[in-house]
Amino acid sequence: ALYRGIENREEVVAKIRSLHTDSLKKLAIRCEDLFMAGQKDQLRFGVDSWSDFRLASDKPSCEAGDAIYYTATYAKDPLNNYAVKICKSKAKESQRQYYHSLAVRQSLSVNFNIQQDCGHFLADVPVRLLPWEDPNSPDEEEEEDEDDVSKEEMGKENGGKKKQDSTSSTAKSQKCNIGNQGTISRQRSRVVVITREVPYQTVAEFVEEAKTRHTKNPDLYERQVCLLLLQLCSGLEHLKPYHVTHCDLRLENLLLVHFRPGGGLLNFEPVEVNPNSTCPARLLVSNFSQAKQKSRIMDSEVLRDQSRLAPEIITGTQYKKCDEFQTGILIYEMLHLPNPFEENPELKEKEYTRADLPPIPHRSLYSRGLQQLASCLLNPNPSERILISDAKDMLRCLLWGPREDVLLALSAVSGSAQRDAVLQNWLDIKRTLLMIKFAEKSLDKESGVGLEDWLCSQYLAFATIESLRRIVRLMHQH
Amino acid sequence: ALYRGIENREEVVAKIRSLHTDSLKKLAIRCEDLFMAGQKDQLRFGVDSWSDFRLASDKPSCEAGDAIYYTATYAKDPLNNYAVKICKSKAKESQRQYYHSLAVRQSLSVNFNIQQDCGHFLADVPVRLLPWEDPNSPDEEEEEDEDDVSKEEMGKENGGKKKQDSTSSTAKSQKCNIGNQGTISRQRSRVVVITREVPYQTVAEFVEEAKTRHTKNPDLYERQVCLLLLQLCSGLEHLKPYHVTHCDLRLENLLLVHFRPGGGLLNFEPVEVNPNSTCPARLLVSNFSQAKQKSRIMDSEVLRDQSRLAPEIITGTQYKKCDEFQTGILIYEMLHLPNPFEENPELKEKEYTRADLPPIPHRSLYSRGLQQLASCLLNPNPSERILISDAKDMLRCLLWGPREDVLLALSAVSGSAQRDAVLQNWLDIKRTLLMIKFAEKSLDKESGVGLEDWLCSQYLAFATIESLRRIVRLMHQH
Repeated sequence: ALYRGIENREEVVAKIRSLHTDSLKKLAIRCEDLFMAGQKDQLRFGVDSWSDFRLASDKPSCEAGDAIYYTATYAKDPLNNYAVKICKSKAKESQRQYYHSLAVRQSLSVNFNIQQDCGHFLADVPVRLLPWEDPNSPDEEEEEDEDDVSKEEMGKENGGKKKQDSTSSTAKSQKCNIGNQGTISRQRSRVVVITREVPYQTVAEFVEEAKTRHTKNPDLYERQVCLLLLQLCSGLEHLKPYHVTHCDLRLENLLLVHFRPGGGLLNFEPVEVNPNSTCPARLLVSNFSQAKQKSRIMDSEVLRDQSRLAPEIITGTQYKKCDEFQTGILIYEMLHLPNPFEENPELKEKEYTRADLPPIPHRSLYSRGLQQLASCLLNPNPSERILISDAKDMLRCLLWGPREDVLLALSAVSGSAQRDAVLQNWLDIKRTLLMIKFAEKSLDKESGVGLEDWLCSQYLAFATIESLRRIVRLMHQH
Repeated sequence: ALYRGIENREEVVAKIRSLHTDSLKKLAIRCEDLFMAGQKDQLRFGVDSWSDFRLASDKPSCEAGDAIYYTATYAKDPLNNYAVKICKSKAKESQRQYYHSLAVRQSLSVNFNIQQDCGHFLADVPVRLLPWEDPNSPDEEEEEDEDDVSKEEMGKENGGKKKQDSTSSTAKSQKCNIGNQGTISRQRSRVVVITREVPYQTVAEFVEEAKTRHTKNPDLYERQVCLLLLQLCSGLEHLKPYHVTHCDLRLENLLLVHFRPGGGLLNFEPVEVNPNSTCPARLLVSNFSQAKQKSRIMDSEVLRDQSRLAPEIITGTQYKKCDEFQTGILIYEMLHLPNPFEENPELKEKEYTRADLPPIPHRSLYSRGLQQLASCLLNPNPSERILISDAKDMLRCLLWGPREDVLLALSAVSGSAQRDAVLQNWLDIKRTLLMIKFAEKSLDKESGVGLEDWLCSQYLAFATIESLRRIVRLMHQH
C-alpha cells in the first residue's frame, strides 16, 4: 500500500508528508515517556517511609520563595535523588497554606512543569537547616501548637535532643533521618515535603546571574527566556481545565531542575550546568499557597446571586486571567527590567493602553516578539487579554518560526490557497529538518535528544495549517 | 536561503529531497566511523608487545578452515578483546602460506569485511591449544626447522618446559604469555597471528546450525543469507582495485564477528547472539593463503609474449572473475544445497548453460532473486559473468527494493521520463522511511543503529536514478 500511486508525484509528496507527521507525533510522545520516566506513576510516601530518607548534604540545593530544598536519598530507590522541601513559614501558618495548596494540587494530573509532591509531614527541624532563622530567637509558635497533626522528629537518632518543650510531639515511632548530624541544636517545627525533582536554582537566581550574559550574548539569553516562558505557559495551560489559577507567579516561585531523559542510573551523576546551552533547564511552577480554584459544582444559590451582577465583578472574583497578567510582568523581569506596575503604581488606576507600557529594548531577534507578547498579556481588559495557550503559540513561533522571511513571502502571495501552500511548504521543510536532527542524534552518544528537541517536536508534530494561520494572525494582530 | 522559493512547491520538494540525501550521506559516513571505530588506525604489534597478550580462556572462540582462534587480552588496552589466531598447518608450510597472504593483505587498505592482522610470530604452542592434533605424534617437522625466523615460546613462564629438541629456539628474551597454564605439555611450533576481531563462528557453522531455522522461517534465514552475501561482496569488491583475487572462498574461510558500534568499553561485555535478528553478524573474509595478486607493473617481455595468445588463456591465468564464480557456489551452499559442480563434475566439461544449473527451491521472498544471482555468477563465460559490484547491487535490490510492486508500476508506465519519475518517487519514500528509522533510534536506548541500518544507508544515500535504472535492468536481464 506504501507504493500505491507511486507514479503520481502529488500522491508521493502527500505520503512523505504524512509519514513525517505520524513519525514526529510518535517521537514527541516517546520523548514525553523518556523525559517523564517514572514520574507518571504518582508516588505517595506515607509516614512509614520517612525513616528511609536521608539528607545527601547539609548544603541546601536551592532556596526558593516559600521553602528551602535539600537533596535527599531514599533507601528504597538508591539510584534516584529526591528533594526535601522545608517550608519557610512557621508550622501553623505554613501548614494552613500547605494543605490549601495540596488540595489544589491533588486535583491536578501530573505535568512536566508543575511541582509534584510525593508526601509531606510536620517535623522538628534542626535550626542549622533553616539558615534564614536566628537560632537564638524563641520559636514563639511552639506553645500554641495543636495536636491534631502527626509530627515527626528530625535528627533524633544520633543523640540530637528531642525538644522537651514541644507539646505537640506525638507518640509516633517513625523517625525521620533528615538532618541527623552529630550536632545538638535547637529544633523548629516545620512542614516538610518530599518531591522527586531536586531544584538547583530559582528563576530569580538564574535571571540575576545572567545580567552580563544578557549584555554579551543577547540572542542566547533571550532565547533561553523564551524557552523558560514556554515551559511556564505549558504548566499554566495545564491548570486551566482544572479551573486553577496560581495567582502568585514570581521569579522565586519558579524552580529550575536538571533533567536527563530516562532518569534511572544517570539521575545520580552530577550534571554540569552549561549556561550557554540554549535550553537552560526544566522549569517547575511551585508554591501554590495563593492558588485559587473555582469549584466546579456551583452552588445554585450563588448562581442565582451572580445572575444579577455586572460581569466585571464576577471576573474580578474568578481570577481567570490573572496568571496571564502575571506572566506579562515576568517577561519584563526576566529581561532585567522592573515590573511596570511597581515602577509606576498609578498605571493601574488610569485606563492604560499598550502605549503606556515601558518599551523593551531591542537587543535580540526575540526582543520585538517578547515586547508584543508582554503587551498582549498585560492588556488591562481581561476579555481582550490573550489566553495562556495563545502566549504559548506566540513563543513557539518566536523560537521556531515561521520567522520574518517566511511571513514576508506569505504577505507577497495573494489568495488564501496560496498562503496556505506557503505555510504547508514551511511546515514540510521544518519537519524534515527536525527529523534529520533526531536521526543524527541516534549516532551521537555524547548529546542525546534534548529538552529543546522535545519542545520543538511538540510544536511541529501537532501543528496544522489552521493552527499556523492562527499563530501568524496573532503575531500580526497587535 | 532555506526558505527561498517557499511559495513554489516544486522547489520545496527538491529542497526536501536534497536535505534527505545530504543527511543520509552524512549518516552513512558517521556509521562507518562508529562501526569501524579504532580500526582505521592500523595496529602493528612487534615482538616486544607479545608478552602483553594473554589468553582469556583455553576454550577456542572459533575453529576456522586454516586456524584456531582464542580470545586474548592485551595489557595495554584492557577494554578491548583481541584474537590470537594459531595457524593449523605445520610451521614451515604455514609460514610460507602466511607470508604470502601477508604480502597480499599488506597491500590492501582497511576494510570492514576483510580480516586485518595486527602482528604475527612463530611460537611454541602447547599441544592442548591445538585440539585437532594427536599430542603423542611426533612433530616431524621440528628437526628441519631453520633458524631464520624469530621464534617465541608459549607457556614458558609458569614452568611449562621449554622444548629441548627444538633447534630453532632463538635467544629472544620476549615471552609470549599465551597458554601459560600450569600444565606441562608438549609444544609445537606454529605461526600465531594477532587480530583485532574475535570470531565466534565460521559461516560454515552458521549455515549448519541454521538447517531447521531455514525450514521454519525461510524468509528470515534467506534474508540473513542475503546480508552475509552482501558483506562478502563488499569485501571482495574492495580487493578489485588492488588486483587481488581470494581464490579460496569457502564457508569455513568466512568468519562471523559480533559487532558493537563504537567499540570501547562495550566491546568487553559478552554479546548475546540472537539468531533471529535479521543481520546475524559482521562477516570477515579470512585465509588469503591462495590469493592471487596481479602485479601492476607488467614485465614488457611478458606483455610481448601475451600479445599473441588467445584471450581465454590470459583470462585463465588472471583469475579475474574467479571470486565471482566461487560466490555463486557459496549461494548454493548457504541455502543448504550442494555445490553443483561437486555433485555433477561433468558440468564443467560440457558447455553448460544456466538451465543446467540445479534449481533453488522457492522457499522465501528472496529465493527467486538468489537463484538468478547464482546463475549470473556461475555463467561459464567470464566476460558474460557479472561483476562482484553488480552482485552487490542485486543483493541490495533484493534486500531493500525496488521490489515486485514497484517494478510492476515501472513497467506499466511508458516513456523513460515517467519511469525515472517512478524511481525517484520510490527513492524519496525509502529515504524518508530510513530517516524516520534513524530518528526513532535516537530515543531507543536498548537497540541503537544496527549493521543492517548502516548497510541500507550506504545503498539509499548514494543511489541515483542512473544506478537504480541499472539495477532494475540487472534484475530483469537474465
